[in-house]
Amino acid sequence: MLRIGVIGYGYWGPNLVRNFVELPNTLVTIVADRREERLDLVRRRFPHVEVTTEFEFLLNADIDAVAIATPVSTHFTLASEALRAGKHVLLEKPMTASTEEALQLIDEASRRDRVLMVDHTFVYTGAVRRIRQLIDQGALGDIYYYDSTRINLGMFQQDVDVIWDLAVHDLSIMDYILPEPPIEVSATGINHVCGATENCAYVTTFYDNPLIAHLNVSWLSPVKVRRTLIGGSKQMVVYDDIEMSEKIKIYNKGVSVTNGDESRYKMRVGYRSGDMYAPQIDTGEALNIVAQHFAECIRTGAKPVTDGYAGLRVVSVLEAATRSMRNHGTSERLSTSCRTASA
Amino acid sequence: MLRIGVIGYGYWGPNLVRNFVELPNTLVTIVADRREERLDLVRRRFPHVEVTTEFEFLLNADIDAVAIATPVSTHFTLASEALRAGKHVLLEKPMTASTEEALQLIDEASRRDRVLMVDHTFVYTGAVRRIRQLIDQGALGDIYYYDSTRINLGMFQQDVDVIWDLAVHDLSIMDYILPEPPIEVSATGINHVCGATENCAYVTTFYDNPLIAHLNVSWLSPVKVRRTLIGGSKQMVVYDDIEMSEKIKIYNKGVSVTNGDESRYKMRVGYRSGDMYAPQIDTGEALNIVAQHFAECIRTGAKPVTDGYAGLRVVSVLEAATRSMRNHGTSERLSTSCRTASA
Amino acid sequence: MLRIGVIGYGYWGPNLVRNFVELPNTLVTIVADRREERLDLVRRRFPHVEVTTEFEFLLNADIDAVAIATPVSTHFTLASEALRAGKHVLLEKPMTASTEEALQLIDEASRRDRVLMVDHTFVYTGAVRRIRQLIDQGALGDIYYYDSTRINLGMFQQDVDVIWDLAVHDLSIMDYILPEPPIEVSATGINHVCGATENCAYVTTFYDNPLIAHLNVSWLSPVKVRRTLIGGSKQMVVYDDIEMSEKIKIYNKGVSVTNGDESRYKMRVGYRSGDMYAPQIDTGEALNIVAQHFAECIRTGAKPVTDGYAGLRVVSVLEAATRSMRNHGTSERLSTSCRTASA
Amino acid sequence: MLRIGVIGYGYWGPNLVRNFVELPNTLVTIVADRREERLDLVRRRFPHVEVTTEFEFLLNADIDAVAIATPVSTHFTLASEALRAGKHVLLEKPMTASTEEALQLIDEASRRDRVLMVDHTFVYTGAVRRIRQLIDQGALGDIYYYDSTRINLGMFQQDVDVIWDLAVHDLSIMDYILPEPPIEVSATGINHVCGATENCAYVTTFYDNPLIAHLNVSWLSPVKVRRTLIGGSKQMVVYDDIEMSEKIKIYNKGVSVTNGDESRYKMRVGYRSGDMYAPQIDTGEALNIVAQHFAECIRTGAKPVTDGYAGLRVVSVLEAATRSMRNHGTSERLSTSCRTASA
Repeated sequence: MLRIGVIGYGYWGPNLVRNFVELPNTLVTIVADRREERLDLVRRRFPHVEVTTEFEFLLNADIDAVAIATPVSTHFTLASEALRAGKHVLLEKPMTASTEEALQLIDEASRRDRVLMVDHTFVYTGAVRRIRQLIDQGALGDIYYYDSTRINLGMFQQDVDVIWDLAVHDLSIMDYILPEPPIEVSATGINHVCGATENCAYVTTFYDNPLIAHLNVSWLSPVKVRRTLIGGSKQMVVYDDIEMSEKIKIYNKGVSVTNGDESRYKMRVGYRSGDMYAPQIDTGEALNIVAQHFAECIRTGAKPVTDGYAGLRVVSVLEAATRSMRNHGTSERLSTSCRTASA
Repeated sequence: MLRIGVIGYGYWGPNLVRNFVELPNTLVTIVADRREERLDLVRRRFPHVEVTTEFEFLLNADIDAVAIATPVSTHFTLASEALRAGKHVLLEKPMTASTEEALQLIDEASRRDRVLMVDHTFVYTGAVRRIRQLIDQGALGDIYYYDSTRINLGMFQQDVDVIWDLAVHDLSIMDYILPEPPIEVSATGINHVCGATENCAYVTTFYDNPLIAHLNVSWLSPVKVRRTLIGGSKQMVVYDDIEMSEKIKIYNKGVSVTNGDESRYKMRVGYRSGDMYAPQIDTGEALNIVAQHFAECIRTGAKPVTDGYAGLRVVSVLEAATRSMRNHGTSERLSTSCRTASA
Repeated sequence: MLRIGVIGYGYWGPNLVRNFVELPNTLVTIVADRREERLDLVRRRFPHVEVTTEFEFLLNADIDAVAIATPVSTHFTLASEALRAGKHVLLEKPMTASTEEALQLIDEASRRDRVLMVDHTFVYTGAVRRIRQLIDQGALGDIYYYDSTRINLGMFQQDVDVIWDLAVHDLSIMDYILPEPPIEVSATGINHVCGATENCAYVTTFYDNPLIAHLNVSWLSPVKVRRTLIGGSKQMVVYDDIEMSEKIKIYNKGVSVTNGDESRYKMRVGYRSGDMYAPQIDTGEALNIVAQHFAECIRTGAKPVTDGYAGLRVVSVLEAATRSMRNHGTSERLSTSCRTASA
Repeated sequence: MLRIGVIGYGYWGPNLVRNFVELPNTLVTIVADRREERLDLVRRRFPHVEVTTEFEFLLNADIDAVAIATPVSTHFTLASEALRAGKHVLLEKPMTASTEEALQLIDEASRRDRVLMVDHTFVYTGAVRRIRQLIDQGALGDIYYYDSTRINLGMFQQDVDVIWDLAVHDLSIMDYILPEPPIEVSATGINHVCGATENCAYVTTFYDNPLIAHLNVSWLSPVKVRRTLIGGSKQMVVYDDIEMSEKIKIYNKGVSVTNGDESRYKMRVGYRSGDMYAPQIDTGEALNIVAQHFAECIRTGAKPVTDGYAGLRVVSVLEAATRSMRNHGTSERLSTSCRTASA
């Protein structure tokens, strides 16, 4: 039986607790949060679980692993100490506030032979796994673009801008499904609230191939949109995460180009406009799979699908995007070391 | 009775002809197109209308005005000659292939005292006129952002890139409804077809105020999207041009920020999440109003709402966006002369 | 060249005229309508077409066929006289105000060897033809139900109730795609306007097999709905006529029943919840095909797909449904003669 | 502290348990279910809650009230015994399998002075409460129709037909919001599975006023629909329970009828097609309010909004509808005693 402690019982923490509780081979034995009123909730729901306002108290408890769901700025310190105390660590996304911190955590986990996993939840959804499968099978052909809109009202964060809060989801999906990491990023954005971080932003990433990705993220939209288009030379996918059924639609549509005989100036673009197909998707809760995968990696020593290097690669794009945004779109090259990381 | 000649009977020309035919005080007497098979269509539909493959022949016909619906690259020459022949001119969007050309046409029309109107069709829709009204009345408060997605499959153009083909619609709407012209533009994009122009592009425009606009345009989307979000400090609008009814939804949603007493670091963001309201919109065909407005300006000498200067301002942003796009997002300043144009 | 006269230039007449004008081998030479202001529209659009307020004048014109788009109550008289004058007749739906009248027209056309075609427009849409194909191929398995909602605001008719106005479309589709005609009908409905006909109605038709059809029609809905579900033992179809793309969705969903071994009381229902598939549909205007088919039947002597017997079968269900509705749902048997008609 | 026992931990029971657990003043102390594997779930989630496979054991536990979420056929026996054991009872819908049983339970609860509440959950949703408010305020004018579609795939029940399973929700909503109970019901339906109950059904209810209600329910639809239209003389409501936001849309649309002066035959129907308005709705979980209301009625002795009489009225329509359905739509009068029940 794996004994888990959870740090942070705010927005995401309750989901972590609930999912570990449902797993047959794990036990949540202790939950830490600074706020007594959050711990009251734990007490009512799970009278048998220990609670504490002191992170250190949790570290000294008899647990194998910790799951950390606190603000990004605290990730590095909490995860470092947990690793040093010999615990395996599941860390919320984004992994850390900088590539520097991410590299240090990877190093710490490696030296102590502990599992360090980043909760890139979307990677574990049926929809994203299915898209990865389609791409791996070549069903989409060459990938032309990844274009995502992830907007809604609210949840203004104080320690991070909207790119770190929302684009992180797309970057983690892209890291998992696209054939290569980006080499360059251009971003624009704006902050409408004096003293706060950017709340609307637009990120473009460039690649060594004729592939482009674009992310539109906002905390100021009156409607919630979670829509991603992935265009390939053979087929195109619309992935709408708000749809209850038909989350993924695969369109047999595209463009084929031929050059006319008469003249090199006459290009002929043919449009293929065929059928659409919506495969049935596994709709199980992704966090349940995250919890299972974390437990399994601890037991077997396997490398998590979303390990520290995946976390690092995502953080490196976030860092560069924020720099580009402050510079009105002037593009930033991504460092080779972060791109090739993992290997 | 106003006598009109129409040049170009391809995609848009038939709509111009049909709308001028329906007007009580205008007559379409001649249509020109290089392609005989297009003229055959005119012959079947309107046996009484003259047709010609020669533009010059049309110019010498007994007509008061010409409406030009040909590729952008030909706009300048055709419009110049028509103006010099003393005809009033209605020009499709984008007005010209460069600001240079636009300025010359404005000058020519002015010297000959002819009406020069650009068919920024969207400006004449019930939806856009209603949004302008809402903004003028202060119903949205300070405008925070304009965010548009205008994507679909196909219609690859050979003489212009996707920004000139699709973003032109948003830029013409923005020119009409936003309180000020942009001062800077950053764009990114890609071309997947060897030898062709960019087919996916993303444009951000910056302003002297905390306002940002963003346009996502593509010829490579499997689905057609025509959705614009306009966020203000008081209310926000979702304008979905594909919706048959409820094209405009006004959300009484937003964010209000207060600074906590205790500390300047504690910012409090309050979320207003109220009712939604979809006003009834005039659903008459916009091109009918364009045709009427053109005829009226000719009769009364009034300045068209979308005159040459409006066309010029739009072209100036298109030019700068294409330059920025070729430079991976590095922003371009917009020349003051084009921005203040019109006066 | 086939010469056509059109009677009635109200709501549907202009569509008939436009479609016959576009056909290469037909000419619209004359249009009749009692209202001068409707004829003015014809004059502006088609200066070369003759107009008249007198139906008799049109009948004596040099024409081969007439298309009749007037109120139902006038269909019988106009069509009878046209047939007697030796013209082929295209009649709007519903064919006539009674089965009695329908039978007489069929007889008249037969004796004079003229084409009598009913404009059951939906039968000629790409969507309905595709559904027929699916059913013919056995792709849906045994048909379990046809369930349609056809509601919107307005168009209160004075001479017919909402069943005759809206359910006629579904009955014509059902007549074309379902494997057999109904044997019994039950209907309920209500009239909210003193002195008027029923404006909301619900019709169920029964068959010799375990098949049921249900139609929900209304002139009092604030939203427009045109949605039909067709369930089969193998697959199910959702046909949404308001969707611009994906009008037809085919669901690989269903129920399979097995009886448990242990006991006859233990029934096991298994749910198949598989992929969805939206075939590309021909989106050409159905009325264009109607016009072509009518012209072709005249030229070749072929029997129209929607001939007088199809019109009669539909009218016979309409008649019975109205009787059942006046009787609060007590079902009416359909006469065998109308059901087996056509042979 | 109110002590609750829950009977049945299948589909709905877990929701009851979870909601009573979250309430500050109630405790779930025991859960009964015949199936050990269901009790295992309780053990994992709530190690402190007692479990039993014996209903009698639960009855003898130290509890104040029981919530019953078992098949309809068992409701009467379980509720009777619980009442006789002095427990307050919250009963799932439909209340009982017959009006006879419902009347006996009402009597039993009354004689023992126990709370008998039926969990007509929808009545406690923000959406339905808002619609009731609109009707009470006269915002819709005279109510013309209630038209609901409640269809999806699956959940074939063995002890009840689809009317008892799905139409029960609409009947409970109608009982709460409509100004009067129905006087007559006509239903049609079909069973496609040998030996099973009807799986598609259509129910019409009639009233003393020009009001009509219609319910379309099915277990055989490939798509899930939960849409209700409520039309009034002043405004109309579309209530779509699947929408995450904008569950209720209020349309300022309608029809106004005037009689022309010239003639009594000339009726003029005017169409009002105005704005649409979507009020913000309380999106809290309805079952939470059900739980609170039940607890409060126990404490204060207040009569539940959905008391035994509400349950009885709903059951009486269900009974009559099933009879009419077996008779192909021939309408059934509703007994006056059930209609006026409650007083």
